[in-house]
Formats: sequence, C-alpha cells, structure tokens
Amino acid sequence: MKSPRTKLRRLPKRGAHDRETIDAILDEAMVCHLGFVHDGKPAVIPTLHARVGDEVLIHGSAASRAQRALATGIDVCLTATLIDGLVLARSAFHHSVNYRSVVLYGTARPLTETEELEKALEAFTEKLVPGRWADVRWPSRKELKGTSALALPIVEGSAKVRTGPPIDDDEDHALDTWAGVVPMRVETLEPEPDPLLREGIAPPQYVSSLVS
Amino acid sequence: MKSPRTKLRRLPKRGAHDRETIDAILDEAMVCHLGFVHDGKPAVIPTLHARVGDEVLIHGSAASRAQRALATGIDVCLTATLIDGLVLARSAFHHSVNYRSVVLYGTARPLTETEELEKALEAFTEKLVPGRWADVRWPSRKELKGTSALALPIVEGSAKVRTGPPIDDDEDHALDTWAGVVPMRVETLEPEPDPLLREGIAPPQYVSSLVS
Repeated sequence: MKSPRTKLRRLPKRGAHDRETIDAILDEAMVCHLGFVHDGKPAVIPTLHARVGDEVLIHGSAASRAQRALATGIDVCLTATLIDGLVLARSAFHHSVNYRSVVLYGTARPLTETEELEKALEAFTEKLVPGRWADVRWPSRKELKGTSALALPIVEGSAKVRTGPPIDDDEDHALDTWAGVVPMRVETLEPEPDPLLREGIAPPQYVSSLVS
Repeated sequence: MKSPRTKLRRLPKRGAHDRETIDAILDEAMVCHLGFVHDGKPAVIPTLHARVGDEVLIHGSAASRAQRALATGIDVCLTATLIDGLVLARSAFHHSVNYRSVVLYGTARPLTETEELEKALEAFTEKLVPGRWADVRWPSRKELKGTSALALPIVEGSAKVRTGPPIDDDEDHALDTWAGVVPMRVETLEPEPDPLLREGIAPPQYVSSLVS
C-alpha cells in the first residue's frame, strides 16, 4: 500500500496503511470525492462508490467531463471522509475534528461489459441499503448502456484517523475553559414513502431497521 | 459565477449559481475536499474551511505537499457536500441520494500576514462552534507562525441540489416494491469532557445547545 505519495509526512502517528482500516472507512462512507485533472486543472466531484473486494467501483457520471481521458483509464484520487466529532481545546490553535479518512491514488478503468456494469449497479444499490437489490426492478439493457462506472484498484493509498480528547499545551490545563469532544454521527430518520407509492406497501425490514 | 467549467452539462435542472445557495452549503458543511494537481496527478484532501464574506478560508496543512506551488497561489477545486437522504426507487437504475454540493474553482492564495492568520484561526474556531472564540486562549505569535491557511475567492463555481422523492419510470409505479426517501442528517451527541478537565467546569451554553 505504501508509496512515496502516501508517506504521510505530516502527522504520521495518525496514518494507517492496513486494509482493514481502509476498507471499513470506504464501506461506511456514503459518498466519496473523486479528483482528476481536466485541462490541466483539478476537479473534485462527489459521487457514490462501493468497494467490492480489492476494487472501489465509482459511479462514473462524476468523471463524464473527463470522458476523453477515460478510454484508456484516468488518473484519480479518491477520498472518503467520516466526521466523528468536534474537538474543543482550551487554545484556539489546538481545535480540531475527530475524523477517519481514506485517500486512494491510481488509474480508474471504465467498466464496459454489460455484466460488469450490472454487477456495479448491484453494488451501488446494496451499498445504499443492504438487502435492496433483491427487491427492485433490475436494470434493462438500455439502462445498462446508459450506466457509466469506473473501477479503481485498492493498491496505493492510506487512512488517517484522529480520535480522542483535545491535546492542549500543559500550561493551558489550568485555564477555566471547558474542553472536550462533541461527538457527531449520521442519523437516519423515519422513511418517507414516495407520494406515488401504491397503498398498502409498508417499508421492508431492511429499510425500517436503518432508523437510528 | 458562471464559466465554461461550471456549465453543468449533466442534469442542469439540479444546478444553481446563486450565492445564497452556495453560501448556505459552504456554511453548513463541516469539512470540504480540496483538490489540487501535484506532480501532474490529482490529490484530494479533506480539510476545515470557513467562509468569510466572498472568500473561503482553507486550513492550509491540506496543501502542504504542494508547498512549492503555493508561493504564487495554487489552482484548486474546493468541493463541499451534504447528504440529506437515501432515495430508494422501484428500479435499481433510479436509486440516488438527496444531497447539496458546491464546487468552487480558482486560485487560492496563501495568507502570510500575522493578522490575517489570526482572523483565519478565529473563523475556523467559530465555524466549528459559534461562540467559541471568546472563550479560548488566543494564538501566540509562535502558533500563528505555525499556522498555514489559504483564501479562495468565491468567483467561479456552482451548487447542485437533489431533493424529493424518487423519479421512477411510469410503468414501474405498478410494482409492489416500496419506494421513498430515508432522510439522513448529522446528529450531535452529548459533549464528552476532556479527562484532564479541571473539576467544576460545565460545558458552556454554546456547546450544550449543539446537542440534537
């Protein structure tokens, strides 16, 4: 996993290169941010992703502006970030957030085979709501032709994680200022049925069990 | 605000260029993703930001790897994304998420004056928790020397917003599949005091009022 780009010269104590850490963050993050170079300039687009084994599948519409570069694969940087809390130190300088992030580098190849595109749609659907695929209408041939997806191998990358209380300078511990962590998480609320939903169709267990 | 890069060729109905929409998303997002080109390749780093008027201030450590390019300003793409819900359609193809995102392009200049760096730290601190700045130890001259921050003018960019129920094909409305939206939001939990906090210091009102 390591490479010169992922040496984490800043704050190496927060770095991790093990696949277990990296996979857990990729799997929990609902969207990622995909970076690529377009006409020599940086572009960063939020998009859905789903890890399948040693690859991250990326919903390809994000890279549609870079279509020309796509035929042979495109250099990307994929970043996924989870925010776990606000870190309130006694000094302004040591304020921070608790977070978990993954940065992957590599060349993403476009999926072209009908079968891989269908597998990708299955992965995106199951990523949004595990159990959903078995319940939905599967994609038609025409829909698959209209689907674009990339695959990025998990080869070069790293995770960064900050946890725990603020780290203040010793002399600041005497201050009267409250210090600590304000935890944050993603809350899932009661499902809202489509106004066009036929009567008598209740949310399935795999949906209602999402509620926090 | 408009430019060839921000024409939103895909899904233009979801696009917005008005400053009110853009500012609200920038202000609500706790972190952004900063993209830049490094040795010809894309890099995307999550980082704290704070909008101040017509600029977004960016915690500069994110761009430390691109230090050399920084002296004269660096081309960046700053993207901030909020996830509002899972959109469950009857067909796999029409699954989506409700989201609000902003993409800004431009050249970020490094802040160099002590006074601007202090103002930036104030903005970052107040962004994390409004009201915090008045309570903390302000930065020393040495800390300000160790602070790096960029300023990106809000000139070229756009917002994209998806809201509302799934959009299914007409013929799929007859299916037995539940369809709708599962709303999501960021939940703030009870503050956890620093284990080193002196006894008898309660969380201030501006902290305890953050709890969802």
